[in-house]
Amino acid sequence: MSSRPTRMSGVLAPVITPFDDDLKPDARRLIRHCRWLLSQGAGLAVFGTNSEANSMSTAEKADLLESLVGSGLDPARMMPGTGCCALTDSIELTRKAVELGCGGVLMLPPFYYKGVSDDGLFASYSEIIQQVGNADLQIYLYHIPPIAQVGLSVGLIERLVKAYPDNIAGIKDSSGDWHNTAAILDRQWPDFRVFPGSEVFLLRAMESGGAGCISATANINPGAINELYQRWDTVRAPQLQDQLNRVRQQLKGVPMIAELKAVVAHYTGDDAWLRVRPPLESLSKQHSKPLLSALEELDFEMPGLAGC
Amino acid sequence: MSSRPTRMSGVLAPVITPFDDDLKPDARRLIRHCRWLLSQGAGLAVFGTNSEANSMSTAEKADLLESLVGSGLDPARMMPGTGCCALTDSIELTRKAVELGCGGVLMLPPFYYKGVSDDGLFASYSEIIQQVGNADLQIYLYHIPPIAQVGLSVGLIERLVKAYPDNIAGIKDSSGDWHNTAAILDRQWPDFRVFPGSEVFLLRAMESGGAGCISATANINPGAINELYQRWDTVRAPQLQDQLNRVRQQLKGVPMIAELKAVVAHYTGDDAWLRVRPPLESLSKQHSKPLLSALEELDFEMPGLAGC
Repeated sequence: MSSRPTRMSGVLAPVITPFDDDLKPDARRLIRHCRWLLSQGAGLAVFGTNSEANSMSTAEKADLLESLVGSGLDPARMMPGTGCCALTDSIELTRKAVELGCGGVLMLPPFYYKGVSDDGLFASYSEIIQQVGNADLQIYLYHIPPIAQVGLSVGLIERLVKAYPDNIAGIKDSSGDWHNTAAILDRQWPDFRVFPGSEVFLLRAMESGGAGCISATANINPGAINELYQRWDTVRAPQLQDQLNRVRQQLKGVPMIAELKAVVAHYTGDDAWLRVRPPLESLSKQHSKPLLSALEELDFEMPGLAGC
Repeated sequence: MSSRPTRMSGVLAPVITPFDDDLKPDARRLIRHCRWLLSQGAGLAVFGTNSEANSMSTAEKADLLESLVGSGLDPARMMPGTGCCALTDSIELTRKAVELGCGGVLMLPPFYYKGVSDDGLFASYSEIIQQVGNADLQIYLYHIPPIAQVGLSVGLIERLVKAYPDNIAGIKDSSGDWHNTAAILDRQWPDFRVFPGSEVFLLRAMESGGAGCISATANINPGAINELYQRWDTVRAPQLQDQLNRVRQQLKGVPMIAELKAVVAHYTGDDAWLRVRPPLESLSKQHSKPLLSALEELDFEMPGLAGC
């Protein structure tokens, strides 16, 4: 019996995706940003909500993933989002991620049809697991009801964990509801990794057996978030959490993608980062100026960009 | 200046998609169902919500569309759904539909990101129109807020009509809210075709300058719906509308895809029609039996299936 891959933990960034002036994904800038994130201790949850993943085709995502791995970045640190509306897209992208050696995949439920049953969602995940048919497949479920509208109940998660203990590795809970995260942590399924979707819950999650966090702001503040992850059981932890919260509070948007891109554009000095794909819009100067000023007042910085 | 394609009108079915026992789209059965729909006077809004379009990849839809046109069915009677989450998928599928000579396309807004602005949605449709770059492109907007969650305001529709009068051809309004349909009809944009998303609004729509309807139930009851479309200005119209409503009322589901498939399976005697792709579920015998009995009591039939 082959040994199961080690499950993921720590701080991961749902990596923002740069686009060129034809609105095509820009692999070169993405690789550079990923290299910086890794240097700051963050793993790579590429193709998350904040990556504008659902504004890209399956082929575009597969190509980007090949570029990332081909550039020498460690696939074991990658947890690409592979859950699409279409069953066949989810299977294709998941298969690609496993073939490339990714440490895991972050999997949305199919999100177009609303009011679907737990049985239907269970069948969807089952079909993907069976059709990918690879013991290395490590699925981190992705619960984000505010955006996907289709959520994952604790009962459904339990059914999946019990049916596929080797493949269902954990969850990103972006409900924004600590009670839901706590309810999942309480179940203590063997080696099941629980990541809240924001670092504001990081200390609480670590105190309750969580695995880290996967948070949008890890795109800009990975080092500080990782510091709390490393030191959550020290006396400094509450202060570190407080500092993280002060940065996080400066970001107001739903979604916050344009804000993150404005911050990265500013600190890299590269306005190409401002571009988003429709239906999203770039942040106007009117909105980015107060955000950047507020971060400056907090002595916020993105250290080490020059080397990446 | 080349003449613009004639815009579409009448009754269209968002054609249900049959799947084989590997859950792959079944072109042969789809062609047969489409042939029957055309024989009953209904046009083919393939790849709508009721087609499980968003459970299929862009490649699967492009292949099916080629099969349909390749089988000799008239593309001028086709209005495939081509609006996807990903800008590049929408462009690819729309381009394919135009190349194949489809009479129009039915276009959802990108629906993953919620709370997006009218400016962002305008930019999305603009980008698609410009990148497809074909004067033959006839877009029917698809407003279905109960499922897509992302809707199209009357103000946005007006901006699109004014910016792209040759490409924005009409709308399917599946809001289920007659006041919204009436507000659109009231604007009387030149040759703008308004289709309510259910035949329960057909008579009212025709009396107010509507173009027909695009309705799930046209998959099973196309002849009767088309009869009202043809005779809406005769004294028999209220009675015809009433008969349509009685059939419609037997379908309870949101979505009603599994119900439609159960009816088609029953009347064709072909249980392969029962299959749906996850996350949807087939109708249980427990639920299909009362539905089929109720239809029988209404003397419901699907005439002419044997010849298709």
